[in-house]
Amino acid sequence: MTATLGTTSTTKTPDLGPAVELVSKEEGHRQPLAPEFVSAEDFSPLEVAYDFGRVRREDIEAGPKNIWRYKKLLPVPSNVEEIPNTEPGATRLVRADRLAKELGLKRVWVKDDTGNPTHSFKDRVVAVALAAAREFGFEVLACPSTGNLANATAAAAARAGWRSVVLIPKTLERAKILTTAVYDGDLLAIDGNYDDVNRLATELAGEHPKWAFVNVNVRPYYSEGSKTLAFEVAEQLGWRIPPQIVVPIASGSQLTKVDKGFRELGQLGLVDASPYKVFGAQATGCSPVSAAFREGHDVVQPVKPDTIARSLAIGNPADGPYVLDIVNRTGGAIEDVSDEEVVEGIRLLARTEGIFTETAGGVTVATAKKLVETGKLDPDAETVLLITGDGLKTLDAIENHVGPKATLPPSAAAVNEALGS
Amino acid sequence: MTATLGTTSTTKTPDLGPAVELVSKEEGHRQPLAPEFVSAEDFSPLEVAYDFGRVRREDIEAGPKNIWRYKKLLPVPSNVEEIPNTEPGATRLVRADRLAKELGLKRVWVKDDTGNPTHSFKDRVVAVALAAAREFGFEVLACPSTGNLANATAAAAARAGWRSVVLIPKTLERAKILTTAVYDGDLLAIDGNYDDVNRLATELAGEHPKWAFVNVNVRPYYSEGSKTLAFEVAEQLGWRIPPQIVVPIASGSQLTKVDKGFRELGQLGLVDASPYKVFGAQATGCSPVSAAFREGHDVVQPVKPDTIARSLAIGNPADGPYVLDIVNRTGGAIEDVSDEEVVEGIRLLARTEGIFTETAGGVTVATAKKLVETGKLDPDAETVLLITGDGLKTLDAIENHVGPKATLPPSAAAVNEALGS
Repeated sequence: MTATLGTTSTTKTPDLGPAVELVSKEEGHRQPLAPEFVSAEDFSPLEVAYDFGRVRREDIEAGPKNIWRYKKLLPVPSNVEEIPNTEPGATRLVRADRLAKELGLKRVWVKDDTGNPTHSFKDRVVAVALAAAREFGFEVLACPSTGNLANATAAAAARAGWRSVVLIPKTLERAKILTTAVYDGDLLAIDGNYDDVNRLATELAGEHPKWAFVNVNVRPYYSEGSKTLAFEVAEQLGWRIPPQIVVPIASGSQLTKVDKGFRELGQLGLVDASPYKVFGAQATGCSPVSAAFREGHDVVQPVKPDTIARSLAIGNPADGPYVLDIVNRTGGAIEDVSDEEVVEGIRLLARTEGIFTETAGGVTVATAKKLVETGKLDPDAETVLLITGDGLKTLDAIENHVGPKATLPPSAAAVNEALGS
Repeated sequence: MTATLGTTSTTKTPDLGPAVELVSKEEGHRQPLAPEFVSAEDFSPLEVAYDFGRVRREDIEAGPKNIWRYKKLLPVPSNVEEIPNTEPGATRLVRADRLAKELGLKRVWVKDDTGNPTHSFKDRVVAVALAAAREFGFEVLACPSTGNLANATAAAAARAGWRSVVLIPKTLERAKILTTAVYDGDLLAIDGNYDDVNRLATELAGEHPKWAFVNVNVRPYYSEGSKTLAFEVAEQLGWRIPPQIVVPIASGSQLTKVDKGFRELGQLGLVDASPYKVFGAQATGCSPVSAAFREGHDVVQPVKPDTIARSLAIGNPADGPYVLDIVNRTGGAIEDVSDEEVVEGIRLLARTEGIFTETAGGVTVATAKKLVETGKLDPDAETVLLITGDGLKTLDAIENHVGPKATLPPSAAAVNEALGS
């Protein structure tokens, strides 16, 4: 047995598959794999670097129908599919002809990530975080969250037989509390706002060597889970990269990892390394990256969020500058939409494709509409929209907008009259 | 062009794939395929009969990752996968070792149908109903419903570009109204209870030749969609039938179709025709089939439902006698559980496997527990539990039972003290 590389005590060498080291995003400083998230050299985020070796389509296609089919491209152990976890992924890629027509685009695909175990893409990142955390010897899965991440963390810990510690602002809606509490972990309501909860998580991560805060101390591994969105889209399109993709921006991590996923597929020869454009979507009430893009800045000015798209409401997005780099490099664009447009986006997707998304998905659809109108999305190029969460979790957003067409007595005549039929 | 066989006007012969005729369940009277649901000869339900021809595992395995991979076993056209529909199915079959341990069973599998497009198994039956209805020349998709079916019908119609007419009791919870209304069909709130709404649907079906009420006039096709649960379970187990399966009972249709699915697989040589036992699960507050089973009757005495498991609350289950036949024939059993046990079942599944089910799933889990305790489920035989709907839709059931462990100030010391860590 060799000594551990991490900061936690463990008696075995972590098996993180193809992952070989961590690299700082700013200056490329390299350091051994460990549960760390900021470079001590340049204070930039740490990212996982790999030695992939040879990866073939056939190996992936023969794998399980979940994200572990891509295990050779993730920082997870080689037997990851044998270890209890939530097994997310393999969600639908829906050809959305009716939506395309309304948007004025020739071909649109909707990646419907509401099919995940707790109905958001967070299951992907949490599953990877759990797999890596286990290798580092952690024993508790933790997070600060206001919703989707809380659900995913509590569910994954339950499935694995781990304890979870989930910190939420005490003002959270009862529905989001219930959907986390049901998994029976240690759910703690904190008398403070989300920033307070986040700071508390970082402090606790320092004190508890056995607690893996998925989006804090194991963040480099966690965030790699978003690459599986890119992998699935490419595989579902018959192993090719879509020319245009629209991605919602919260911290910006997902957008950067979708780009990383596409690049890795190209580098490995799993797809033709064709050009693609990455587009970012924000709600105007929290649009620091969109504002920076519009003004041509390469840094992001923090804002105080005020939008119904709460799962995207990160006022100081950690990966904002990297998002700007990618969007500029690929020739994409970033736009933001009003809360009214978000609701319209939710309704448009539901009405045309029968997919009910949360506010973040409404942001993506409405932004796509705006990007067509402003000529930034090429109407003739195939476009993928990432729909990352479920409408059942944000019912408040639509409750003053939709309802029964009429309330009637139980009579066929009344129905016929009401419907003019 | 030949004349239509159905009661609706259409200009083409319906292509319903391998389906060849309808057969009455009681006396086996045969009649041509049509949108009819009761035999005029013996007044029993009509069921689809097939001429399957040769069906090979390879053909199925090469099909799409949704229920249409089984199109050669369903009453749907041969090009069904090319027509917009919700494409449900391919949901997870989860090996549930932690649940198995708590139940005292050696091996348990959970079929997690919350991964469907609108998060219940109803997407399966509605998709088949829509596919068949289109062949019969219908143009409107309709249903009476109190929840899951309303969601599935409105979503499928939206995706297909059809109009939907969904009838609900006006007292339905706001959440269930919103999750149907968002798809922008004709949702009508009826001033009456579910029985009133149901009667109204039957009356309207008679008046409107272009309206396919999924669970009324196209019910024989609709109900065949439940067979895909059996097909998927068998395929996911490596083409074999589980020795024990626990199925919730509402109308009883799902249980009869799971059995039909297993039998068809055996007849076609797609699996070894090994023996299996089918177990039924009801909530005590609506347990007419369980009561009949216990008393050894072969008919079912209707009851007035009073249970939190509202999606199972059918007091006069149409397929009750057939359920009794199957359970007795296969050597299974039926049990019912109290509302308190239903909540415990929901919590047990969430706590052990990270799967949050609606009340119907709580019924299935709690019934499995009772069946083990009473010696009716063999602890050494592999057992599949059908989890057919999502906890997000029945939050009321758990809201007085789960919540945060504590509410604390934003201090690490307070957290550590509260958790004793």
